[in-house]
Amino acid sequence: MKICVINPNTSLDMTLHIEKELKKIAGNETELQVICPDKGPITLECAVDEAYSIPEMLKLVKQAETDGFDAVVIACFSDPGLEAAKEMVQIPVIGIGEASIHAASMLGARFTVITPVKRRVPTRIHQALHHISHHSLASVRSLDISVAQSESDPALTVKRLLEVVEKAVEADGAEVIVLGCAGMTGYTKELEERYKIVVVDPCTVALKFAEAFASLGLRQSKVGHYSFPPKKLYK
Amino acid sequence: MKICVINPNTSLDMTLHIEKELKKIAGNETELQVICPDKGPITLECAVDEAYSIPEMLKLVKQAETDGFDAVVIACFSDPGLEAAKEMVQIPVIGIGEASIHAASMLGARFTVITPVKRRVPTRIHQALHHISHHSLASVRSLDISVAQSESDPALTVKRLLEVVEKAVEADGAEVIVLGCAGMTGYTKELEERYKIVVVDPCTVALKFAEAFASLGLRQSKVGHYSFPPKKLYK
Amino acid sequence: MKICVINPNTSLDMTLHIEKELKKIAGNETELQVICPDKGPITLECAVDEAYSIPEMLKLVKQAETDGFDAVVIACFSDPGLEAAKEMVQIPVIGIGEASIHAASMLGARFTVITPVKRRVPTRIHQALHHISHHSLASVRSLDISVAQSESDPALTVKRLLEVVEKAVEADGAEVIVLGCAGMTGYTKELEERYKIVVVDPCTVALKFAEAFASLGLRQSKVGHYSFPPKKLYK
Amino acid sequence: MKICVINPNTSLDMTLHIEKELKKIAGNETELQVICPDKGPITLECAVDEAYSIPEMLKLVKQAETDGFDAVVIACFSDPGLEAAKEMVQIPVIGIGEASIHAASMLGARFTVITPVKRRVPTRIHQALHHISHHSLASVRSLDISVAQSESDPALTVKRLLEVVEKAVEADGAEVIVLGCAGMTGYTKELEERYKIVVVDPCTVALKFAEAFASLGLRQSKVGHYSFPPKKLYK
Amino acid sequence: MKICVINPNTSLDMTLHIEKELKKIAGNETELQVICPDKGPITLECAVDEAYSIPEMLKLVKQAETDGFDAVVIACFSDPGLEAAKEMVQIPVIGIGEASIHAASMLGARFTVITPVKRRVPTRIHQALHHISHHSLASVRSLDISVAQSESDPALTVKRLLEVVEKAVEADGAEVIVLGCAGMTGYTKELEERYKIVVVDPCTVALKFAEAFASLGLRQSKVGHYSFPPKKLYK
Amino acid sequence: MKICVINPNTSLDMTLHIEKELKKIAGNETELQVICPDKGPITLECAVDEAYSIPEMLKLVKQAETDGFDAVVIACFSDPGLEAAKEMVQIPVIGIGEASIHAASMLGARFTVITPVKRRVPTRIHQALHHISHHSLASVRSLDISVAQSESDPALTVKRLLEVVEKAVEADGAEVIVLGCAGMTGYTKELEERYKIVVVDPCTVALKFAEAFASLGLRQSKVGHYSFPPKKLYK
Repeated sequence: MKICVINPNTSLDMTLHIEKELKKIAGNETELQVICPDKGPITLECAVDEAYSIPEMLKLVKQAETDGFDAVVIACFSDPGLEAAKEMVQIPVIGIGEASIHAASMLGARFTVITPVKRRVPTRIHQALHHISHHSLASVRSLDISVAQSESDPALTVKRLLEVVEKAVEADGAEVIVLGCAGMTGYTKELEERYKIVVVDPCTVALKFAEAFASLGLRQSKVGHYSFPPKKLYK
Repeated sequence: MKICVINPNTSLDMTLHIEKELKKIAGNETELQVICPDKGPITLECAVDEAYSIPEMLKLVKQAETDGFDAVVIACFSDPGLEAAKEMVQIPVIGIGEASIHAASMLGARFTVITPVKRRVPTRIHQALHHISHHSLASVRSLDISVAQSESDPALTVKRLLEVVEKAVEADGAEVIVLGCAGMTGYTKELEERYKIVVVDPCTVALKFAEAFASLGLRQSKVGHYSFPPKKLYK
Repeated sequence: MKICVINPNTSLDMTLHIEKELKKIAGNETELQVICPDKGPITLECAVDEAYSIPEMLKLVKQAETDGFDAVVIACFSDPGLEAAKEMVQIPVIGIGEASIHAASMLGARFTVITPVKRRVPTRIHQALHHISHHSLASVRSLDISVAQSESDPALTVKRLLEVVEKAVEADGAEVIVLGCAGMTGYTKELEERYKIVVVDPCTVALKFAEAFASLGLRQSKVGHYSFPPKKLYK
Repeated sequence: MKICVINPNTSLDMTLHIEKELKKIAGNETELQVICPDKGPITLECAVDEAYSIPEMLKLVKQAETDGFDAVVIACFSDPGLEAAKEMVQIPVIGIGEASIHAASMLGARFTVITPVKRRVPTRIHQALHHISHHSLASVRSLDISVAQSESDPALTVKRLLEVVEKAVEADGAEVIVLGCAGMTGYTKELEERYKIVVVDPCTVALKFAEAFASLGLRQSKVGHYSFPPKKLYK
Repeated sequence: MKICVINPNTSLDMTLHIEKELKKIAGNETELQVICPDKGPITLECAVDEAYSIPEMLKLVKQAETDGFDAVVIACFSDPGLEAAKEMVQIPVIGIGEASIHAASMLGARFTVITPVKRRVPTRIHQALHHISHHSLASVRSLDISVAQSESDPALTVKRLLEVVEKAVEADGAEVIVLGCAGMTGYTKELEERYKIVVVDPCTVALKFAEAFASLGLRQSKVGHYSFPPKKLYK
Repeated sequence: MKICVINPNTSLDMTLHIEKELKKIAGNETELQVICPDKGPITLECAVDEAYSIPEMLKLVKQAETDGFDAVVIACFSDPGLEAAKEMVQIPVIGIGEASIHAASMLGARFTVITPVKRRVPTRIHQALHHISHHSLASVRSLDISVAQSESDPALTVKRLLEVVEKAVEADGAEVIVLGCAGMTGYTKELEERYKIVVVDPCTVALKFAEAFASLGLRQSKVGHYSFPPKKLYK
């Protein structure tokens, strides 16, 4: 089974970090490719960044299908361009945001999403409630560090994660924590040991769901919302 | 007051049609510009079309602010790139979708959105419920004609509109009809006379809301969700 | 265009205050009348006050239509008697509560409504959720001063507003503040400067929406919920 | 235990009809009074009718407390003025709408409310969802006869009830029917026999809930939303 | 009228406590029986406890119908096995959880449920929102004592109740308190006097609702969700 | 990896049918056991059936953990006893209902659940909305055949499935079909070919999710809702 994981930002460091973590858990029969676009923003922290990353990412999605991949994972928690990607190809496309939100709601009564920057808190709430029932969402809390910092300064990231998770557990009743950024991949052990909670690492869950869907022959339905784009003039 | 209306697809015909209709109702003190990008899809009928239209549209939004416009209207019912546009500039940006959904819910107990193509029905439902309370939405119904047909074949469009509106009124209890496509601008009179209902023409309502916000000095809040994009490397 | 703004309480001071503020922003072509009933409660702070103010207010609504006004604004944030007023006449009737709630949800991801008295907090929550989607409402917070104080003691009002808005921004994530009482008209500048947020002044937004609807020929639909009252015996 | 049932319209016929039905089921220790105001609309079919009935009704509520009654029932399904009545007195006030909506949701998975006139369908939906969870409401359906007809023409009322209930059961999955008008009191047996469903007669349920609350010393909480109206000038 | 109250745990102390409290408020014509199963868990504090108590409880429900009782009350706030009990018999079955949740939402704008153990907080939220509209629920708060302690140590229970209710009133805006455990029956007076709020004692309200339904001939509908179980092989 | 699939009814035929289908798709490294209890109802069609099956099923769950299994799947779409099972053990427990509802909402804009018997329609709606956002659920439709028939009469089952799926697609806008009964496992191909839709077979998806969770070391959080049952006396 061939699975293509696309990091939609242009950070090679983050792409390699994701690849390293995913190789640890990929199935024996999974041939894994982790890539990112050449052009576009180095991190995705707002809707403008996403808007400029999506067209490049969609080309990679299309190419993955052409190259015979069995499934695609979009490795940014915001699931940028996910609807368009599902329209564009027949193979299953999974966002790490949607996968981890659904997984988290099966693993506890209430979960908290941790997001790097505060301005994205409303987006995360809206995203979660688009997928799952409102009573599963304990809260969304932000680290108040930039996505770049979350990559380059692991000590700061861990410190802030510990502070924020403690509040989520005590004040919000969180039983499960979702690390709401692809760059946070790899911090689960410290949090689980300290708070005895369950931590969902989005990239790993999404890869496993992609393996699951691909092995069952499941893909997004092409009869309605995700049917192929109609042919038309592009000036 | 200078207001820039941006049709995010590349159809000059639709752009001129919108301009013609808006000139009829623009305020005396409003200097109106209606434009569209040079590059991109000729109509927007799916998420892929939107993804490729947004970066070009955002340049026009930025240019409008630079050129001293007081407000921007995005003239596609899907409100493509609206979040990004609101981040990008300080002047108020209004989508014709959001404006007409809010207006419709003040004008009757329940409204129906008419959309050209069936595949967009879930998007319209989701969009409406993102903005207003669920009990205001009677239904979303599709004409089952392409956006191109809705422009080029007015007789077919009217015929389908009359059929669909009748069902919305009788089966769904619609009291207000929202024409869910910029290209439908100009069909309100026939529907209002036939069914005695109220018809919301999205472009006209959005222009009036833009005039209202601009004259009051209201703009999207820049302290949270719509704050300016952080500076960063774009490869 | 003739627009009649009706303050449903009997406070001449508040009526004049509203008139003064609205004259600053009324359109050039708008002929503005701001009135209040002769009989009834001096402020509206509970459902009993509203119940006794509505019949008098409805007479003024009817008279406004007879006198050739093009639209009516009900200038109390609770929108007392709004459904009845929309039934009674053909011209558009807009409540300052509904107008500002819809406007606020277009101007930021989450807004907070400030209400004078604590007992009205549940009413404000219910009112907001009647109009817009739950994720747009950050919170409702009360000044814990009477409506009369909010008129007579501007220093106290400003002091409490600053305290409460700070909490709304910091604890609730509010990006937009809605001044939830007609008597608070005129305090926007201080709040905007201090917190860089956007403040919605309900009377001004409602007047602009009334101008917008009247100029487009939009009115509440008369085929369903707001159809004219059936004729019947009134003992 | 003394319970005062107030029909807020001025129809003596309906008042006597309600009294006759309630006397059949009142508890042995219940002293029952069924009254209506002298002034106001003969039936309540829209928000305007309600607005003019409420001030008169509130006087009767106050008088009931003064006269030593232990509870008040407002016998109109729309629960007109219920919030104001709960503010005004210390004794429990129960609306027949709220009582029967809560009862119905305990008696089946989904219930349908039958309302006389079509224009009130949105009001009934909104009322139900104000009280109970959305999945308990199967539908709201209208008889499309006036409230006056529902009183004066029992044969027509039964005929329409049977037609509408059949649709509710078959098309909407209704397991329980709520007769959504005080004037429909007394038709339960025919419907129950024909469709083997459960029919909730609002006046009877509300009287029993009033007896229940009064005997337990339960009343609306006076510390928040329903606290007594603040003293103030009424011009 | 014969009413059977079934405490589904096997604590005789709690059964006698419930009986003592209910005898104080049972109607003159009510013949009251309060029982519990011989086998099963001594308290119900989690889903496992409930799973093991339900089969024994259902036998008692069936027996109550056979013995000519007119209604059954399930006296555990979690309403364990309530759906199954409503399927099993024709006589009305009422859970103390559902009864008090519905009652509380008629007695104030917002109520708080107090539950003994923290782990049950999500269950209580979900239960409340299954029955009533979300804006009626102020919060769920836990005493953080075991159900056994809530029976055996009244001083500790009162102390914790006072602390928790104070937070519910001040921080959550609660106007009504629901004592979310059958074992808390009997503490209403202290709370009402101290905080001037209304306290709903679930067992008493459920008994009164059972009397109400039985006297009106109301029972769960047997045409859909609660129809009798189909006959089948039980190995 | 060892995974134990528990069919909670006592039908050996259904258990073997599930085993046969799951063996086709189990991972290479998965050691699969499919079992059912000795005692209890032969099919689960109502809450009473579930109540009597759960205690036996819980013993098998506990035994699976003792026997060193890495995950448990509960193979009845109603997810009977799922909360209790998650409390009881440390290894992940997944219900086929929850797994397929979450999967379906990732594979299309709206899905329909097909359930054998009509009386369970409200349960299915409630179950779906417990897990996912309401706009993902197109409808729940019933075959109106018994669970036993769905096993013993494949021709009838296929005929009814085709009729019901056609309605789901055309009238409800379903893009994905969830086969809402473990006994329907194996019918996906016929439906997919006929309607070009995507069909979710609950047992297979749940097995893949169990493999995914087990391989990642994910399990239900034991710090809150699913913490181990407190020790106590069981009479």
